[in-house]
Amino acid sequence: MKQETKIILIGAGNVATQLGIALSAAGYKISQVYSKTKSSSSILAKKLKAESINDLKKLDTDAAVYIIAVKDDAIADVAKQLKLNDQIVVHTSGSISMDVLKRSSKNYGVFYPLQTFTKDKKINFKEIPVCIEGNNKSTSTTLQYFAKSISSNVKEISSDQRKVIHLAAVFACNFSNHMYAIADDILKQNKLSLDLLKPLIAETAEKIKTNSPAKVQTGPAVRGDQKVMEEQLKMLKNKELKEMYKIISKDIKA
Amino acid sequence: MKQETKIILIGAGNVATQLGIALSAAGYKISQVYSKTKSSSSILAKKLKAESINDLKKLDTDAAVYIIAVKDDAIADVAKQLKLNDQIVVHTSGSISMDVLKRSSKNYGVFYPLQTFTKDKKINFKEIPVCIEGNNKSTSTTLQYFAKSISSNVKEISSDQRKVIHLAAVFACNFSNHMYAIADDILKQNKLSLDLLKPLIAETAEKIKTNSPAKVQTGPAVRGDQKVMEEQLKMLKNKELKEMYKIISKDIKA
Repeated sequence: MKQETKIILIGAGNVATQLGIALSAAGYKISQVYSKTKSSSSILAKKLKAESINDLKKLDTDAAVYIIAVKDDAIADVAKQLKLNDQIVVHTSGSISMDVLKRSSKNYGVFYPLQTFTKDKKINFKEIPVCIEGNNKSTSTTLQYFAKSISSNVKEISSDQRKVIHLAAVFACNFSNHMYAIADDILKQNKLSLDLLKPLIAETAEKIKTNSPAKVQTGPAVRGDQKVMEEQLKMLKNKELKEMYKIISKDIKA
Repeated sequence: MKQETKIILIGAGNVATQLGIALSAAGYKISQVYSKTKSSSSILAKKLKAESINDLKKLDTDAAVYIIAVKDDAIADVAKQLKLNDQIVVHTSGSISMDVLKRSSKNYGVFYPLQTFTKDKKINFKEIPVCIEGNNKSTSTTLQYFAKSISSNVKEISSDQRKVIHLAAVFACNFSNHMYAIADDILKQNKLSLDLLKPLIAETAEKIKTNSPAKVQTGPAVRGDQKVMEEQLKMLKNKELKEMYKIISKDIKA
Protein backbone atom coordinates (compact mmCIF):
# COMPACT_ATOMS: atom_id res chain seq x y z
CA MET A 1 0.00 0.00 0.00
CA LYS A 2 1.45 3.28 -1.12
CA GLN A 3 1.60 6.17 1.24
CA GLU A 4 -0.47 9.06 -0.09
CA THR A 5 -3.28 6.56 -0.41
CA LYS A 6 -6.39 7.89 1.20
CA ILE A 7 -7.44 7.03 4.72
CA ILE A 8 -10.78 7.88 6.32
CA LEU A 9 -11.15 8.27 10.06
CA ILE A 10 -14.51 7.41 11.56
CA GLY A 11 -14.34 8.92 15.02
CA ALA A 12 -12.60 11.99 16.39
CA GLY A 13 -11.77 11.01 19.96
CA ASN A 14 -8.42 10.26 21.62
CA VAL A 15 -7.51 7.25 19.49
CA ALA A 16 -8.63 8.81 16.19
CA THR A 17 -6.71 11.98 17.01
CA GLN A 18 -3.41 10.29 17.85
CA LEU A 19 -3.72 7.82 15.00
CA GLY A 20 -4.60 10.56 12.53
CA ILE A 21 -1.58 12.61 13.57
CA ALA A 22 0.77 9.62 13.29
CA LEU A 23 -0.60 8.50 9.90
CA SER A 24 -0.49 12.00 8.56
CA ALA A 25 3.13 12.37 9.69
CA ALA A 26 3.92 9.06 7.96
CA GLY A 27 2.70 10.54 4.67
CA TYR A 28 -0.81 9.21 4.41
CA LYS A 29 -3.59 11.47 3.21
CA ILE A 30 -6.46 11.57 5.70
CA SER A 31 -9.26 12.61 3.38
CA GLN A 32 -12.23 12.67 5.76
CA VAL A 33 -12.91 12.71 9.48
CA TYR A 34 -16.37 11.64 10.61
CA SER A 35 -17.97 12.31 13.97
CA LYS A 36 -21.57 12.56 15.15
CA THR A 37 -20.45 15.71 16.90
CA LYS A 38 -19.71 18.53 14.48
CA SER A 39 -17.22 20.32 16.73
CA SER A 40 -15.15 17.15 17.28
CA SER A 41 -14.83 16.22 13.62
CA SER A 42 -14.06 19.76 12.55
CA ILE A 43 -11.27 20.22 15.13
CA LEU A 44 -9.54 17.01 14.07
CA ALA A 45 -10.25 17.52 10.35
CA LYS A 46 -8.63 20.94 10.52
CA LYS A 47 -5.55 19.48 12.19
CA LEU A 48 -5.26 16.82 9.47
CA LYS A 49 -6.33 19.03 6.55
CA ALA A 50 -9.23 16.67 5.92
CA GLU A 51 -12.91 17.15 5.19
CA SER A 52 -15.13 17.12 8.27
CA ILE A 53 -18.33 15.09 7.89
CA ASN A 54 -21.18 14.29 10.25
CA ASP A 55 -23.21 11.92 8.12
CA LEU A 56 -21.88 8.49 7.20
CA LYS A 57 -23.70 8.75 3.87
CA LYS A 58 -21.15 11.38 2.87
CA LEU A 59 -18.20 8.99 3.15
CA ASP A 60 -16.03 8.89 0.03
CA THR A 61 -15.89 5.44 -1.48
CA ASP A 62 -12.38 5.70 -2.87
CA ALA A 63 -10.28 5.49 0.28
CA ALA A 64 -7.94 2.53 0.84
CA VAL A 65 -8.57 2.13 4.55
CA TYR A 66 -11.54 3.07 6.74
CA ILE A 67 -10.59 3.26 10.41
CA ILE A 68 -13.44 3.03 12.90
CA ALA A 69 -12.21 4.58 16.14
CA VAL A 70 -15.42 5.18 18.03
CA LYS A 71 -16.64 3.97 21.45
CA ASP A 72 -16.78 0.16 21.62
CA ASP A 73 -20.54 0.00 21.83
CA ALA A 74 -20.98 2.28 18.81
CA ILE A 75 -18.83 0.12 16.49
CA ALA A 76 -21.60 -2.30 15.49
CA ASP A 77 -23.88 0.57 14.61
CA VAL A 78 -21.26 2.24 12.39
CA ALA A 79 -20.42 -1.13 10.80
CA LYS A 80 -24.05 -1.62 9.79
CA GLN A 81 -24.04 1.65 7.91
CA LEU A 82 -20.87 0.91 5.94
CA LYS A 83 -21.36 -0.76 2.58
CA LEU A 84 -17.94 -0.96 1.00
CA ASN A 85 -16.72 -3.24 -1.73
CA ASP A 86 -13.20 -4.47 -1.09
CA GLN A 87 -11.75 -1.42 0.66
CA ILE A 88 -10.23 -2.39 3.99
CA VAL A 89 -12.23 -1.47 7.08
CA VAL A 90 -10.78 -1.86 10.58
CA HIS A 91 -11.77 -0.97 14.10
CA THR A 92 -9.29 -0.04 16.84
CA SER A 93 -10.89 -1.71 19.82
CA GLY A 94 -9.28 -4.15 22.24
CA SER A 95 -12.46 -5.92 23.16
CA ILE A 96 -14.66 -6.12 20.07
CA SER A 97 -14.42 -9.11 17.78
CA MET A 98 -13.26 -8.60 14.19
CA ASP A 99 -16.48 -10.20 12.91
CA VAL A 100 -18.57 -7.16 13.76
CA LEU A 101 -17.24 -5.82 10.43
CA LYS A 102 -18.01 -8.80 8.22
CA ARG A 103 -20.91 -7.16 6.42
CA SER A 104 -19.12 -3.85 5.89
CA SER A 105 -16.60 -5.00 3.28
CA LYS A 106 -14.98 -8.09 1.77
CA ASN A 107 -11.74 -7.09 3.52
CA TYR A 108 -11.86 -6.21 7.18
CA GLY A 109 -9.80 -6.45 10.30
CA VAL A 110 -8.52 -4.89 13.49
CA PHE A 111 -5.88 -2.27 14.14
CA TYR A 112 -5.50 -2.07 17.92
CA PRO A 113 -2.80 0.25 19.23
CA LEU A 114 -1.94 -0.79 22.77
CA GLN A 115 -1.69 2.56 24.41
CA THR A 116 -3.66 5.00 26.54
CA PHE A 117 -4.37 8.10 24.52
CA THR A 118 -5.12 11.64 25.51
CA LYS A 119 -6.04 14.11 22.79
CA ASP A 120 -3.55 16.78 23.72
CA LYS A 121 -0.55 14.74 24.75
CA LYS A 122 1.85 14.00 21.92
CA ILE A 123 2.71 10.34 21.62
CA ASN A 124 5.61 8.55 19.99
CA PHE A 125 3.75 5.96 17.95
CA LYS A 126 6.96 4.14 16.95
CA GLU A 127 7.14 2.35 20.31
CA ILE A 128 3.48 1.47 20.60
CA PRO A 129 2.62 -2.19 20.02
CA VAL A 130 -0.03 -2.41 17.32
CA CYS A 131 -2.09 -5.62 17.29
CA ILE A 132 -3.44 -6.35 13.84
CA GLU A 133 -5.80 -9.00 12.51
CA GLY A 134 -7.27 -9.48 9.03
CA ASN A 135 -10.10 -11.65 7.77
CA ASN A 136 -7.88 -13.03 5.00
CA LYS A 137 -4.19 -13.31 4.17
CA SER A 138 -4.02 -10.28 1.87
CA THR A 139 -5.78 -8.02 4.37
CA SER A 140 -3.43 -9.18 7.15
CA THR A 141 -0.42 -8.49 4.94
CA THR A 142 -1.67 -5.04 3.98
CA LEU A 143 -2.42 -4.21 7.62
CA GLN A 144 1.11 -5.38 8.58
CA TYR A 145 2.65 -2.92 6.12
CA PHE A 146 0.23 -0.20 7.11
CA ALA A 147 0.95 -0.62 10.85
CA LYS A 148 4.70 -0.89 10.30
CA SER A 149 4.72 2.51 8.67
CA ILE A 150 3.92 4.09 12.03
CA SER A 151 5.07 1.53 14.63
CA SER A 152 8.13 -0.68 14.95
CA ASN A 153 6.23 -3.10 17.17
CA VAL A 154 3.50 -4.76 15.07
CA LYS A 155 2.02 -8.11 16.12
CA GLU A 156 -0.55 -10.34 14.48
CA ILE A 157 -3.01 -11.15 17.26
CA SER A 158 -6.26 -13.11 17.07
CA SER A 159 -9.57 -11.72 18.39
CA ASP A 160 -9.39 -14.09 21.38
CA GLN A 161 -5.84 -13.11 22.27
CA ARG A 162 -6.73 -9.46 21.85
CA LYS A 163 -9.51 -9.79 24.43
CA VAL A 164 -7.02 -11.25 26.90
CA ILE A 165 -4.57 -8.42 26.23
CA HIS A 166 -7.31 -5.85 26.67
CA LEU A 167 -8.34 -7.35 30.01
CA ALA A 168 -4.72 -7.30 31.17
CA ALA A 169 -4.43 -3.71 29.96
CA VAL A 170 -7.43 -2.67 32.03
CA PHE A 171 -5.59 -3.87 35.15
CA ALA A 172 -2.16 -2.56 34.15
CA CYS A 173 -3.33 0.81 32.91
CA ASN A 174 -6.85 1.85 33.97
CA PHE A 175 -6.75 0.24 37.39
CA SER A 176 -3.21 1.34 38.21
CA ASN A 177 -4.20 4.85 37.15
CA HIS A 178 -7.15 4.63 39.51
CA MET A 179 -4.75 3.72 42.33
CA TYR A 180 -2.93 6.98 41.55
CA ALA A 181 -6.26 8.81 41.61
CA ILE A 182 -7.11 7.39 45.04
CA ALA A 183 -3.66 8.39 46.34
CA ASP A 184 -4.24 11.87 44.93
CA ASP A 185 -7.58 12.11 46.77
CA ILE A 186 -6.14 10.91 50.08
CA LEU A 187 -3.35 13.47 49.86
CA LYS A 188 -5.62 16.32 48.79
CA GLN A 189 -8.00 15.66 51.68
CA ASN A 190 -5.01 16.25 53.92
CA LYS A 191 -3.70 19.27 52.01
CA LEU A 192 -0.74 17.34 50.64
CA SER A 193 0.29 17.09 47.01
CA LEU A 194 0.65 14.09 44.69
CA ASP A 195 4.01 15.61 43.71
CA LEU A 196 5.43 13.89 46.78
CA LEU A 197 4.65 10.49 45.26
CA LYS A 198 5.69 11.13 41.68
CA PRO A 199 9.23 9.76 41.99
CA LEU A 200 7.74 6.68 43.66
CA ILE A 201 5.16 6.18 40.92
CA ALA A 202 7.82 6.59 38.23
CA GLU A 203 10.13 4.08 39.89
CA THR A 204 7.32 1.56 40.40
CA ALA A 205 6.59 1.61 36.67
CA GLU A 206 10.29 1.67 35.80
CA LYS A 207 11.11 -1.36 37.95
CA ILE A 208 8.94 -3.75 36.02
CA LYS A 209 10.74 -3.03 32.76
CA THR A 210 13.35 -5.52 33.93
CA ASN A 211 11.65 -7.37 36.80
CA SER A 212 8.56 -9.47 37.24
CA PRO A 213 6.10 -7.25 39.17
CA ALA A 214 5.25 -9.95 41.73
CA LYS A 215 8.95 -10.31 42.57
CA VAL A 216 9.54 -6.63 43.31
CA GLN A 217 6.41 -6.03 45.38
CA THR A 218 7.06 -4.02 48.57
CA GLY A 219 4.88 -2.60 51.35
CA PRO A 220 2.85 -3.85 54.31
CA ALA A 221 0.77 -6.48 52.48
CA VAL A 222 3.66 -8.47 51.03
CA ARG A 223 5.54 -8.19 54.36
CA GLY A 224 2.43 -9.43 56.16
CA ASP A 225 2.54 -6.39 58.41
CA GLN A 226 -0.91 -6.78 60.03
CA LYS A 227 -0.57 -3.85 62.40
CA VAL A 228 0.13 -1.34 59.65
CA MET A 229 -2.68 -2.76 57.51
CA GLU A 230 -5.16 -2.48 60.38
CA GLU A 231 -4.14 1.11 61.05
CA GLN A 232 -4.40 2.02 57.38
CA LEU A 233 -7.85 0.44 57.17
CA LYS A 234 -8.95 2.62 60.07
CA MET A 235 -7.70 5.72 58.27
CA LEU A 236 -9.92 4.95 55.25
CA LYS A 237 -13.36 6.34 55.96
CA ASN A 238 -14.96 5.29 52.70
CA LYS A 239 -16.53 1.81 52.80
CA GLU A 240 -15.63 0.96 49.19
CA LEU A 241 -12.01 1.97 49.71
CA LYS A 242 -11.80 -0.20 52.82
CA GLU A 243 -13.11 -3.15 50.82
CA MET A 244 -10.69 -2.44 47.98
CA TYR A 245 -7.77 -2.16 50.40
CA LYS A 246 -8.64 -5.50 51.99
CA ILE A 247 -9.14 -7.42 48.78
CA ILE A 248 -5.99 -6.13 47.07
CA SER A 249 -3.86 -6.66 50.20
CA LYS A 250 -5.17 -10.19 50.53
CA ASP A 251 -4.40 -10.92 46.90
CA ILE A 252 -0.86 -9.52 47.25
CA LYS A 253 -0.24 -11.93 50.13
CA ALA A 254 -1.79 -14.93 48.39
CA MET B 1 26.99 17.82 61.09
CA LYS B 2 30.23 17.15 59.26
CA GLN B 3 30.44 14.46 56.68
CA GLU B 4 32.90 11.77 57.79
CA THR B 5 30.88 11.63 60.97
CA LYS B 6 29.94 8.08 61.80
CA ILE B 7 26.60 6.56 60.92
CA ILE B 8 25.32 3.19 62.11
CA LEU B 9 22.78 1.22 60.13
CA ILE B 10 20.43 -1.02 62.05
CA GLY B 11 18.94 -3.24 59.38
CA ALA B 12 20.33 -4.64 56.14
CA GLY B 13 17.27 -4.86 53.90
CA ASN B 14 16.28 -2.86 50.83
CA VAL B 15 16.05 0.53 52.56
CA ALA B 16 19.22 0.09 54.63
CA THR B 17 21.12 -1.01 51.53
CA GLN B 18 20.09 1.91 49.33
CA LEU B 19 20.45 4.43 52.13
CA GLY B 20 23.85 3.07 53.10
CA ILE B 21 25.09 3.30 49.51
CA ALA B 22 23.81 6.88 49.14
CA LEU B 23 25.24 8.06 52.48
CA SER B 24 28.54 6.39 51.79
CA ALA B 25 28.72 8.07 48.38
CA ALA B 26 27.96 11.41 50.08
CA GLY B 27 31.08 10.98 52.22
CA TYR B 28 29.64 9.62 55.45
CA LYS B 29 31.40 6.81 57.24
CA ILE B 30 29.08 3.89 57.86
CA SER B 31 30.86 2.31 60.82
CA GLN B 32 28.56 -0.63 61.61
CA VAL B 33 25.75 -2.58 59.98
CA TYR B 34 23.50 -4.60 62.26
CA SER B 35 21.17 -7.41 61.27
CA LYS B 36 19.72 -10.41 63.12
CA THR B 37 20.77 -12.38 60.08
CA LYS B 38 24.52 -12.76 59.78
CA SER B 39 24.59 -13.16 56.01
CA SER B 40 22.52 -9.97 55.45
CA SER B 41 24.64 -7.72 57.65
CA SER B 42 27.90 -9.07 56.30
CA ILE B 43 26.93 -8.55 52.65
CA LEU B 44 25.95 -4.93 53.26
CA ALA B 45 28.83 -4.25 55.67
CA LYS B 46 31.29 -5.47 53.07
CA LYS B 47 29.75 -3.16 50.45
CA LEU B 48 30.06 -0.19 52.82
CA LYS B 49 33.40 -1.14 54.38
CA ALA B 50 31.67 -1.29 57.76
CA GLU B 51 31.76 -3.73 60.64
CA SER B 52 29.05 -6.38 60.54
CA ILE B 53 27.32 -7.03 63.87
CA ASN B 54 24.49 -9.32 64.91
CA ASP B 55 24.04 -8.28 68.52
CA LEU B 56 22.73 -4.83 69.42
CA LYS B 57 24.95 -4.86 72.54
CA LYS B 58 27.92 -4.50 70.22
CA LEU B 59 26.78 -1.14 68.85
CA ASP B 60 29.42 1.57 69.07
CA THR B 61 28.26 4.48 71.19
CA ASP B 62 30.19 7.16 69.33
CA ALA B 63 28.21 7.43 66.09
CA ALA B 64 26.37 10.65 65.24
CA VAL B 65 23.26 9.03 63.76
CA TYR B 66 21.69 5.62 64.31
CA ILE B 67 19.36 4.67 61.48
CA ILE B 68 16.81 1.98 62.24
CA ALA B 69 15.73 0.49 58.91
CA VAL B 70 14.07 -2.75 59.94
CA LYS B 71 10.56 -4.13 59.36
CA ASP B 72 7.92 -1.82 60.85
CA ASP B 73 6.86 -4.27 63.52
CA ALA B 74 10.45 -4.83 64.66
CA ILE B 75 11.17 -1.12 65.26
CA ALA B 76 9.72 -0.98 68.80
CA ASP B 77 11.77 -3.98 69.82
CA VAL B 78 15.01 -2.46 68.50
CA ALA B 79 14.12 0.90 70.12
CA LYS B 80 13.78 -0.76 73.52
CA GLN B 81 17.30 -2.13 73.28
CA LEU B 82 18.89 1.22 72.37
CA LYS B 83 20.12 3.28 75.30
CA LEU B 84 21.86 6.27 73.76
CA ASN B 85 22.60 9.60 75.33
CA ASP B 86 22.08 12.45 72.89
CA GLN B 87 23.10 10.78 69.67
CA ILE B 88 20.37 11.07 67.06
CA VAL B 89 18.32 7.96 66.41
CA VAL B 90 15.83 7.78 63.54
CA HIS B 91 13.67 5.19 61.93
CA THR B 92 12.82 5.11 58.22
CA SER B 93 9.22 3.96 58.36
CA GLY B 94 6.22 5.62 56.79
CA SER B 95 3.72 4.30 59.27
CA ILE B 96 5.36 4.22 62.68
CA SER B 97 5.11 7.22 64.98
CA MET B 98 8.27 9.06 65.97
CA ASP B 99 7.49 8.47 69.64
CA VAL B 100 8.43 4.82 69.48
CA LEU B 101 11.99 6.14 69.87
CA LYS B 102 11.48 8.44 72.84
CA ARG B 103 13.25 6.20 75.32
CA SER B 104 16.18 5.43 73.01
CA SER B 105 17.84 8.87 73.09
CA LYS B 106 17.25 12.51 74.00
CA ASN B 107 17.31 13.28 70.28
CA TYR B 108 15.23 11.21 67.96
CA GLY B 109 13.25 11.49 64.80
CA VAL B 110 12.21 10.05 61.45
CA PHE B 111 14.02 9.85 58.13
CA TYR B 112 11.48 8.46 55.65
CA PRO B 113 12.61 8.23 52.03
CA LEU B 114 9.55 8.06 49.82
CA GLN B 115 10.62 5.41 47.41
CA THR B 116 10.26 1.71 46.66
CA PHE B 117 13.61 0.04 47.11
CA THR B 118 15.08 -3.11 45.71
CA LYS B 119 18.47 -4.22 46.94
CA ASP B 120 20.08 -4.68 43.57
CA LYS B 121 18.64 -1.80 41.61
CA LYS B 122 20.67 1.38 41.76
CA ILE B 123 18.65 4.40 42.72
CA ASN B 124 19.25 8.10 42.25
CA PHE B 125 18.64 9.35 45.76
CA LYS B 126 18.83 13.01 44.71
CA GLU B 127 15.26 12.95 43.40
CA ILE B 128 13.72 11.01 46.24
CA PRO B 129 11.57 13.03 48.62
CA VAL B 130 12.83 12.51 52.16
CA CYS B 131 10.31 13.24 54.93
CA ILE B 132 12.05 14.19 58.14
CA GLU B 133 10.80 14.87 61.64
CA GLY B 134 12.69 15.59 64.85
CA ASN B 135 11.58 15.63 68.48
CA ASN B 136 13.15 19.07 68.97
CA LYS B 137 14.33 21.99 66.89
CA SER B 138 18.03 21.07 66.87
CA THR B 139 17.33 17.46 65.85
CA SER B 140 15.05 18.65 63.04
CA THR B 141 17.71 21.06 61.83
CA THR B 142 20.42 18.40 61.92
CA LEU B 143 18.18 15.95 60.08
CA GLN B 144 17.45 18.62 57.46
CA TYR B 145 21.16 19.03 56.73
CA PHE B 146 21.73 15.31 56.86
CA ALA B 147 18.90 14.57 54.41
CA LYS B 148 19.90 17.41 52.09
CA SER B 149 23.32 15.88 51.66
CA ILE B 150 21.75 13.01 49.73
CA SER B 151 18.42 14.39 48.43
CA SER B 152 17.37 17.67 46.89
CA ASN B 153 13.77 17.10 47.98
CA VAL B 154 13.63 17.24 51.80
CA LYS B 155 10.37 18.00 53.60
CA GLU B 156 9.56 18.40 57.26
CA ILE B 157 6.52 16.20 57.78
CA SER B 158 4.69 15.40 61.03
CA SER B 159 3.98 11.82 62.13
CA ASP B 160 0.28 12.28 61.27
CA GLN B 161 1.02 13.63 57.80
CA ARG B 162 3.53 10.85 57.24
CA LYS B 163 0.89 8.21 57.92
CA VAL B 164 -1.36 9.81 55.32
CA ILE B 165 1.50 9.86 52.81
CA HIS B 166 2.29 6.25 53.53
CA LEU B 167 -1.33 5.22 53.01
CA ALA B 168 -1.39 7.10 49.69
CA ALA B 169 1.91 5.44 48.75
CA VAL B 170 0.46 1.99 49.36
CA PHE B 171 -2.20 2.74 46.73
CA ALA B 172 0.09 4.53 44.29
CA CYS B 173 2.97 2.08 44.51
CA ASN B 174 2.15 -1.31 46.07
CA PHE B 175 -1.38 -1.55 44.70
CA SER B 176 -0.53 -0.26 41.24
CA ASN B 177 2.35 -2.76 41.15
CA HIS B 178 -0.13 -5.48 42.06
CA MET B 179 -2.28 -4.43 39.09
CA TYR B 180 0.82 -5.02 36.93
CA ALA B 181 1.28 -8.42 38.60
CA ILE B 182 -2.33 -9.42 37.83
CA ALA B 183 -1.91 -8.31 34.20
CA ASP B 184 1.29 -10.37 34.04
CA ASP B 185 -0.59 -13.45 35.34
CA ILE B 186 -3.49 -13.03 32.91
CA LEU B 187 -1.07 -12.76 29.99
CA LYS B 188 1.12 -15.68 31.11
CA GLN B 189 -1.91 -17.95 31.47
CA ASN B 190 -2.53 -17.23 27.81
CA LYS B 191 1.10 -17.56 26.74
CA LEU B 192 1.44 -13.85 26.12
CA SER B 193 4.13 -11.57 27.53
CA LEU B 194 3.92 -8.50 29.74
CA ASP B 195 6.33 -6.88 27.27
CA LEU B 196 3.26 -6.05 25.18
CA LEU B 197 1.98 -3.79 27.95
CA LYS B 198 5.22 -2.11 28.96
CA PRO B 199 4.82 0.98 26.75
CA LEU B 200 1.28 1.32 28.11
CA ILE B 201 2.42 1.03 31.73
CA ALA B 202 5.20 3.57 31.15
CA GLU B 203 2.81 6.05 29.52
CA THR B 204 0.21 5.63 32.27
CA ALA B 205 2.81 6.59 34.88
CA GLU B 206 4.25 9.33 32.66
CA LYS B 207 0.87 10.96 32.04
CA ILE B 208 0.24 11.84 35.66
CA LYS B 209 3.45 13.85 35.91
CA THR B 210 1.52 16.69 34.34
CA ASN B 211 -2.13 15.64 34.67
CA SER B 212 -4.46 14.80 37.50
CA PRO B 213 -4.93 10.98 37.32
CA ALA B 214 -8.73 11.16 37.56
CA LYS B 215 -8.80 13.50 34.55
CA VAL B 216 -6.80 11.22 32.25
CA GLN B 217 -8.57 7.96 33.10
CA THR B 218 -9.43 5.83 30.05
CA GLY B 219 -10.97 2.40 29.51
CA PRO B 220 -14.36 0.70 29.81
CA ALA B 221 -15.19 1.76 33.39
CA VAL B 222 -14.83 5.50 32.89
CA ARG B 223 -16.69 5.24 29.54
CA GLY B 224 -19.46 3.29 31.29
CA ASP B 225 -19.08 0.52 28.73
CA GLN B 226 -21.22 -2.13 30.48
CA LYS B 227 -20.96 -4.73 27.75
CA VAL B 228 -17.16 -4.79 27.80
CA MET B 229 -17.12 -4.89 31.59
CA GLU B 230 -19.54 -7.82 31.67
CA GLU B 231 -17.45 -9.73 29.14
CA GLN B 232 -14.25 -9.03 31.03
CA LEU B 233 -15.84 -10.20 34.29
CA LYS B 234 -16.76 -13.46 32.58
CA MET B 235 -13.16 -13.94 31.48
CA LEU B 236 -11.91 -13.70 35.08
CA LYS B 237 -12.24 -17.14 36.62
CA ASN B 238 -10.89 -16.22 40.05
CA LYS B 239 -13.56 -15.03 42.52
CA GLU B 240 -11.30 -12.48 44.23
CA LEU B 241 -10.28 -10.98 40.91
CA LYS B 242 -13.92 -10.66 39.86
CA GLU B 243 -14.67 -8.83 43.11
CA MET B 244 -11.63 -6.58 42.65
CA TYR B 245 -12.60 -5.80 39.06
CA LYS B 246 -16.13 -4.84 40.13
CA ILE B 247 -15.15 -2.68 43.05
CA ILE B 248 -12.42 -0.77 41.21
CA SER B 249 -14.60 -0.26 38.11
CA LYS B 250 -17.44 1.02 40.28
CA ASP B 251 -15.10 3.42 42.04
CA ILE B 252 -13.72 4.70 38.71
CA LYS B 253 -17.26 5.52 37.61
CA ALA B 254 -18.28 7.13 40.88
